[in-house]
Amino acid sequence: MYTANEVEKYSFRNDYSEGAHPFIIQSLFTRCTEVNLPYGADKHSDAAADMIRKLCKAPNAEVAFLAGGTPTNVLAISAFLRNAYEAVIAPVSGHVNVHETGAIEYSGHKVIDVPSGLDGKLTPELIDSAVSFHGGEHMVVPKLVYLSQSTELGTIYSKAELTAISEYCRSHGLYLFLDGARLGSALMAKENDLDLADIAALCDAFYIGGTKNGLLFGEALVFTDNSATDHLRWLIKQHGFMLAKGYIVGMQFEEAFRDGLFFKMAKHENECAEKIVEAIRRCGFELYTKWQTNQIFVILPTKLAEELSEKFGCFIESRLTDDRCAVRIVTSWATTDDAVDAISAWFLAKFCAGIIKDYIRK
Amino acid sequence: MYTANEVEKYSFRNDYSEGAHPFIIQSLFTRCTEVNLPYGADKHSDAAADMIRKLCKAPNAEVAFLAGGTPTNVLAISAFLRNAYEAVIAPVSGHVNVHETGAIEYSGHKVIDVPSGLDGKLTPELIDSAVSFHGGEHMVVPKLVYLSQSTELGTIYSKAELTAISEYCRSHGLYLFLDGARLGSALMAKENDLDLADIAALCDAFYIGGTKNGLLFGEALVFTDNSATDHLRWLIKQHGFMLAKGYIVGMQFEEAFRDGLFFKMAKHENECAEKIVEAIRRCGFELYTKWQTNQIFVILPTKLAEELSEKFGCFIESRLTDDRCAVRIVTSWATTDDAVDAISAWFLAKFCAGIIKDYIRK
Amino acid sequence: MYTANEVEKYSFRNDYSEGAHPFIIQSLFTRCTEVNLPYGADKHSDAAADMIRKLCKAPNAEVAFLAGGTPTNVLAISAFLRNAYEAVIAPVSGHVNVHETGAIEYSGHKVIDVPSGLDGKLTPELIDSAVSFHGGEHMVVPKLVYLSQSTELGTIYSKAELTAISEYCRSHGLYLFLDGARLGSALMAKENDLDLADIAALCDAFYIGGTKNGLLFGEALVFTDNSATDHLRWLIKQHGFMLAKGYIVGMQFEEAFRDGLFFKMAKHENECAEKIVEAIRRCGFELYTKWQTNQIFVILPTKLAEELSEKFGCFIESRLTDDRCAVRIVTSWATTDDAVDAISAWFLAKFCAGIIKDYIRK
Amino acid sequence: MYTANEVEKYSFRNDYSEGAHPFIIQSLFTRCTEVNLPYGADKHSDAAADMIRKLCKAPNAEVAFLAGGTPTNVLAISAFLRNAYEAVIAPVSGHVNVHETGAIEYSGHKVIDVPSGLDGKLTPELIDSAVSFHGGEHMVVPKLVYLSQSTELGTIYSKAELTAISEYCRSHGLYLFLDGARLGSALMAKENDLDLADIAALCDAFYIGGTKNGLLFGEALVFTDNSATDHLRWLIKQHGFMLAKGYIVGMQFEEAFRDGLFFKMAKHENECAEKIVEAIRRCGFELYTKWQTNQIFVILPTKLAEELSEKFGCFIESRLTDDRCAVRIVTSWATTDDAVDAISAWFLAKFCAGIIKDYIRK
Repeated sequence: MYTANEVEKYSFRNDYSEGAHPFIIQSLFTRCTEVNLPYGADKHSDAAADMIRKLCKAPNAEVAFLAGGTPTNVLAISAFLRNAYEAVIAPVSGHVNVHETGAIEYSGHKVIDVPSGLDGKLTPELIDSAVSFHGGEHMVVPKLVYLSQSTELGTIYSKAELTAISEYCRSHGLYLFLDGARLGSALMAKENDLDLADIAALCDAFYIGGTKNGLLFGEALVFTDNSATDHLRWLIKQHGFMLAKGYIVGMQFEEAFRDGLFFKMAKHENECAEKIVEAIRRCGFELYTKWQTNQIFVILPTKLAEELSEKFGCFIESRLTDDRCAVRIVTSWATTDDAVDAISAWFLAKFCAGIIKDYIRK
Repeated sequence: MYTANEVEKYSFRNDYSEGAHPFIIQSLFTRCTEVNLPYGADKHSDAAADMIRKLCKAPNAEVAFLAGGTPTNVLAISAFLRNAYEAVIAPVSGHVNVHETGAIEYSGHKVIDVPSGLDGKLTPELIDSAVSFHGGEHMVVPKLVYLSQSTELGTIYSKAELTAISEYCRSHGLYLFLDGARLGSALMAKENDLDLADIAALCDAFYIGGTKNGLLFGEALVFTDNSATDHLRWLIKQHGFMLAKGYIVGMQFEEAFRDGLFFKMAKHENECAEKIVEAIRRCGFELYTKWQTNQIFVILPTKLAEELSEKFGCFIESRLTDDRCAVRIVTSWATTDDAVDAISAWFLAKFCAGIIKDYIRK
Repeated sequence: MYTANEVEKYSFRNDYSEGAHPFIIQSLFTRCTEVNLPYGADKHSDAAADMIRKLCKAPNAEVAFLAGGTPTNVLAISAFLRNAYEAVIAPVSGHVNVHETGAIEYSGHKVIDVPSGLDGKLTPELIDSAVSFHGGEHMVVPKLVYLSQSTELGTIYSKAELTAISEYCRSHGLYLFLDGARLGSALMAKENDLDLADIAALCDAFYIGGTKNGLLFGEALVFTDNSATDHLRWLIKQHGFMLAKGYIVGMQFEEAFRDGLFFKMAKHENECAEKIVEAIRRCGFELYTKWQTNQIFVILPTKLAEELSEKFGCFIESRLTDDRCAVRIVTSWATTDDAVDAISAWFLAKFCAGIIKDYIRK
Repeated sequence: MYTANEVEKYSFRNDYSEGAHPFIIQSLFTRCTEVNLPYGADKHSDAAADMIRKLCKAPNAEVAFLAGGTPTNVLAISAFLRNAYEAVIAPVSGHVNVHETGAIEYSGHKVIDVPSGLDGKLTPELIDSAVSFHGGEHMVVPKLVYLSQSTELGTIYSKAELTAISEYCRSHGLYLFLDGARLGSALMAKENDLDLADIAALCDAFYIGGTKNGLLFGEALVFTDNSATDHLRWLIKQHGFMLAKGYIVGMQFEEAFRDGLFFKMAKHENECAEKIVEAIRRCGFELYTKWQTNQIFVILPTKLAEELSEKFGCFIESRLTDDRCAVRIVTSWATTDDAVDAISAWFLAKFCAGIIKDYIRK
């Protein structure tokens, strides 16, 4: 029924499998011979930064445009932590802890991982357990808290939750940095009650992810605290993260925020995800984590998990037991109705075939 | 006569002030919703790598696509030098020695700078002076030679010169890495007698620069020696250099090499430069270094240097004396006839105004 | 009853509060003007290394003498892990994970901490949980297992336990490194069934700690696997760990192993500890971890913990609840009968005063 | 005439071939069972630091005791340069530039080497050439000047010279750090006009070398500028430089400064050197660099250089031409009259044999 090619037709592997929204590329196309200053000192980067400062109601924020999530995380953390013995507190499932090949450690800093649960979220209590444990010159000095919005497990922090964390950080001399690789989807989530201005007010730095939300590539790193902004350009260059043609990121963000395209794309992702979640629930499958954004984690019998993974390019997040897996389904700005229908139909087919019933019976 | 806006109209600041050749962006545009595997494991990167292997007559070469010159240099050097006490020999004017904010040192390695002359070129003798000096565990271990083609001063190595260096390296256990940020222009230089297959045969690794030759961004790093290829992907990721949408670099190189566009753009740069060099010579100005590629270094009285710099965005390379400077003029894939005429006219105007005569009289 | 000065009279703070055994210093004294080659290339270091090779029945082992525990751990780990993306698996309570101010991370490597229990010991199962979790270029590569003998909690691995771990490591391509800061005490423990030859056979590297066993300072790092031995001296020097007068460590180990002094001192430590443990048990106090070596962890009401800590310089290991602490008591080569009697008397006094009873009643 | 054993009898290899002055070791011996606080927080380190503050007339200086020259250099430089893109300016012959296996680069910082001459000394002009060259975020930021007193070539800075450098540094926002591995010999040089208080006033940090002046090991690092002192202990620990028994360095410095022993030993070195220099001059040999301290560099025909090297363990500093070498002769606190007579006799013997005449004739 499904052919190998369908993987490339209907991909739910991630939100960076398709190039970019046509408007984004068009904005580069129309300016392909325009002369611009190099290394991000151009008018497009300036204009995009201004748009972002306005959205964030943070007129004095510093904005830097970078090429991807890992460099943005490394840069933000290095910028705040000037001494290698200063450390980052992160949830055990945090991207910097598990999926960046030790990039933070390569920059010299320890990642103190705290045992967040299935929702992948930090709390003041979890942070405090790490803070209380450390002291004296024989241990690293926790200095920055790292969290992701949405998290690596698709969940989001509420305004109350983020406020509590922010207050803890400020009263304990910790910087707060929010990884916004999927901030678009988080902001457009139905349950979300945070806007960019809230995030700017509560965090010392955060980034607005473009790569996973319809841009060719690019992240907008926003610093609302000025502790790190004097030396950003040296750090960016020394790490190898400075783009000669920085303006091509500026142009993309200009286009993304000019007319709400950024938010429309994120909303689309969430709507596609919602339809799939409805299909999953209707068919009696259980979710692994609470669904809130464009990432869905569904529990399936191993055999089905592998089939879904093969047909739709999904990633098996975790092998829960010998016969049950959690599978990740991700929607993107480019997910089509056809694709949503196809994956929904797959779930329905499995349901009808009674495979589920057998599974439940066991 | 010149307005502030003309800087942006006629820029000779560098070869990365204009976005990209329309065909390059078109290749992304037409595939904007195409589904591809992430992190460079896609069919476009594969196809582009194959094209490069063919051009290099190196069927077993490993090709990695990266986002810019500094990350490519850091990666190649880190890949070969597994131990921090192993060092790079570079000309004192080498990009890794002076213009990368200590990125190589940040990765732990010493850059041993040897006093290359005005042409910015290494020789076996210069390399040997560094090799002979080092020995024993109290000194770093020279392990890799870094050079650029074309050099930072616009000159190129001949086949005889590169062969001599390659032979020295091989007989002394040194890797040879060629920084090809401007390899296109070097390959299309009138005096050039090296092709990609020669370079692949003589070097252990090198890169073909896209950013400075008409791509939006992207460098193709080619390893012909397999000492470093087993762990490239871990290194790329850990350094923060792995692009989620690696395929957008693959697509660009595919387009660049599909039909000779890469070489046509480089040829255009050199032809524009040649016209400007003719104008400079006709007007009696002296060149600072031998002209061979798309970078021209001209000696001017300080006042004129500053005027040229202001009108055409040129970079003052060096203040030779209180009243004489070397100014860099760079042509790009996007340099227009109008721009060439404008800068040539400027030289002619200065000549006619007799400023030169005064200068020569002194 | 106790004066401030008594802390310095009867210290159970650690096993490095007293300079060195008189015979050790005498060995330096008698050779104070003897000429020796620098940087560890001397006859005393050679002789000490030979003694160690014999004790280890490892005639081809490489032995390096270093100044302390942290440099020895950093060196051993760096020597095996040539690439920064390679990581160390350690128990969460491992010295390299918590008490070296991120020294391993400073050298670029991630420490993967696994949740060892109260005994501070690894098992093949715990190691496997970390190994199974990691895979692919987006994660670090576990490459070395770190454990301590005795552990940071005073316990020891049996021959069966260490053999199981060694077998796991060898069948999974992992190096095994044993931190022997307190190896002397472990080897002389009553329950110990491992000798130096066993340890040399089961581990790829380990060290014999001198600083915590009666030497002025010095650790003998033994490599039985030759993967790392070709470049040790460069690494030692680059890290700043090479002693100009390396022979003064060689002389100390020569003296320590010449006539069994090393083992006598360790035995003395354990015997003192045993007497204190007897007193503790007789008085009805509970131990926090199983007692086996020269570190005793006893659970006390907070008030008593603080008093013990103040009187005898003990370290409060952990605040278990608001009113109970685990306190660490350490004996050394220099612990006197007087000191043992004094601390035993303190426990007895508390017992008699009925404070314990009250505590239990609560 | 000379036997192989004489090398160990009469060594002029360096000033760290003999253990330590008997009084130094005695000071450890008499306190071998004394209880002290660990990690340098003890009363002996405090007392020694106080003595040093008094000698330096710097009551607020911070003093840290370390185990050797390389760790002290790495620590001082890391302490001032909190960001890796900040760089050290050093003479090309500076110890940190050539003889520490890239330890500074391993800590992330570039060493900008300036072409000092045969005397191995910096000048404000040389420093300024490096400062003027650097600017902007594409280059490292020079932030600290490193020099040695005495230099690696045995010469010393006069008060006027060091003052000029200090003034340059202060007016250009550069820290000044003086490597005092051989500060004792420099301070006791006949031509010296600097005392410890001058050095403390002119430099932001410097160290007083014990290892090369009669201690078992140990350097006293003095910070007169407080920019780096808040986080020294974290840095020391993270680098692996913190000694568990820090008090054994404190005890040695206490003894060295209690009664002038430190200066007496340095004076002895210089006096021995002076006698040898007299013999060399009397015999018509030429010095390679100006003689001022306990290092003598003499030019010899290669054959004689090799003989001297073999007989007296001297180091061939440089092969000047095919038939002439510069040889280093170093005296130490332990150099005997016998040794001075023996090497003087060797020069006389060569003179008498007419070898010199032949050499001069050529």
